Amino acid sequence: MRKYAGTREDAARWVRDVLRAQILDGGFGGLSAPRPMLPPENTLASDLGVSRNAIREALDLLRAEGLITRVQGAGTFVTGAKLRQRLDRLEGLAESLAGHQLSVVNRVVSAREDTANPFVAAKLHVQEGSPIYFIERVRSVGGVALSLDTTSLRPEAIDVVRGADLDTTDVFTLLETELGVRLGRAENTVEAVAADRGSARMLEVRPGSPLLLVHRLTFLDDDTPFDLESVRYRGDRLSLVTVNPRLTRG
Amino acid sequence: MRKYAGTREDAARWVRDVLRAQILDGGFGGLSAPRPMLPPENTLASDLGVSRNAIREALDLLRAEGLITRVQGAGTFVTGAKLRQRLDRLEGLAESLAGHQLSVVNRVVSAREDTANPFVAAKLHVQEGSPIYFIERVRSVGGVALSLDTTSLRPEAIDVVRGADLDTTDVFTLLETELGVRLGRAENTVEAVAADRGSARMLEVRPGSPLLLVHRLTFLDDDTPFDLESVRYRGDRLSLVTVNPRLTRG
Repeated sequence: MRKYAGTREDAARWVRDVLRAQILDGGFGGLSAPRPMLPPENTLASDLGVSRNAIREALDLLRAEGLITRVQGAGTFVTGAKLRQRLDRLEGLAESLAGHQLSVVNRVVSAREDTANPFVAAKLHVQEGSPIYFIERVRSVGGVALSLDTTSLRPEAIDVVRGADLDTTDVFTLLETELGVRLGRAENTVEAVAADRGSARMLEVRPGSPLLLVHRLTFLDDDTPFDLESVRYRGDRLSLVTVNPRLTRG
Repeated sequence: MRKYAGTREDAARWVRDVLRAQILDGGFGGLSAPRPMLPPENTLASDLGVSRNAIREALDLLRAEGLITRVQGAGTFVTGAKLRQRLDRLEGLAESLAGHQLSVVNRVVSAREDTANPFVAAKLHVQEGSPIYFIERVRSVGGVALSLDTTSLRPEAIDVVRGADLDTTDVFTLLETELGVRLGRAENTVEAVAADRGSARMLEVRPGSPLLLVHRLTFLDDDTPFDLESVRYRGDRLSLVTVNPRLTRG
């Protein structure tokens, strides 16, 4: 039974609009499915009452918009329903999720005193080999892995962080309330990288999958670099948003 | 001949520091080679006078820092020498490159009147199917592809952009000087995506390679959304930098 009468091109555009609205509204599992997928082309054609050719054209259009991606032999995945997190306001994950009925779970993979490697030492302005506190956590939202976070803290933080319940306690809060420091500016660097084997395993994606890698260095208000985080977000789960109040041209 | 005497672990750390300094200084081709690579392990071992095991340990450490990446069967690529571009200031590419002796080349792939698809229509606040001006360009730096940029402009821009030399002329400059509009704020969304086949070809990377995808919507100072860009940066070539003047907590 055809539900749409018209040329194939018109049908494709109509199908695209129907599917786009469903994707943006969180259909097909949206943000809560491990890997939200579209039904097979046959099913879509029969459900929407159009030809498979029209479905294929519609999927091409949605792919061109970046809302879906096709993986040979696996199916068509929905990539358009991503969590959005502000980068310019260091918005907390809870705030980003306001309005979504999604739970956030932190799992501590590692929390220990360590020594600063040269990268960390240079960033935190400590000697290479200095004691630091190192935390590695996996954050999941709605039961699905979102990010792998590593945090390196200056030696002054060790006493208050050691023994804290890092599954439920925010590190910034610990630093401010227990250590009594005030946090100031932060510098962020954002890269796209392929998931290494270990990160892929913890994030439940295939090795090589695109990740957003954010290095965030947070300073105290006296300009001491204090907290270095490296966060690997699953590229299919999150986008970062910034607003430039006014364009400054280079 | 051993140039380094000490334990293997010490040797590995020494090698790592030597290689890191070379990478960050733009060695091994740095920003100007199509795909900067490290020499083979044997060569490094002999050049630096340490065992292959020490070299392997050093490479593991560098990989953990994100400075190199190993591609099975192809070798070890340098990924640490990336261009840095400010995201929060909409820094021009020329400004980002100040200090580097690298040329910027724009190649126009397509420049034409088109009609707004629903994504573009929603962003630019025009009717779906409205005329827009569409530009697709590949930008190269130092002779190596950096980004694939598509630009969609509101109908008012068509007359001034049509016929302009877009290889050498900045679109923002055209809009301000020829059309006489004033540009205001911009909204950016940053994603990590796998390169589709077409983008991969134009960016000279393998399909599936990680790309930074930046959607940038620039408004006029009267708040009309005017210029929608989607820029796909090679993940191995560029990182985006933002500075939060002061931490605001969510």
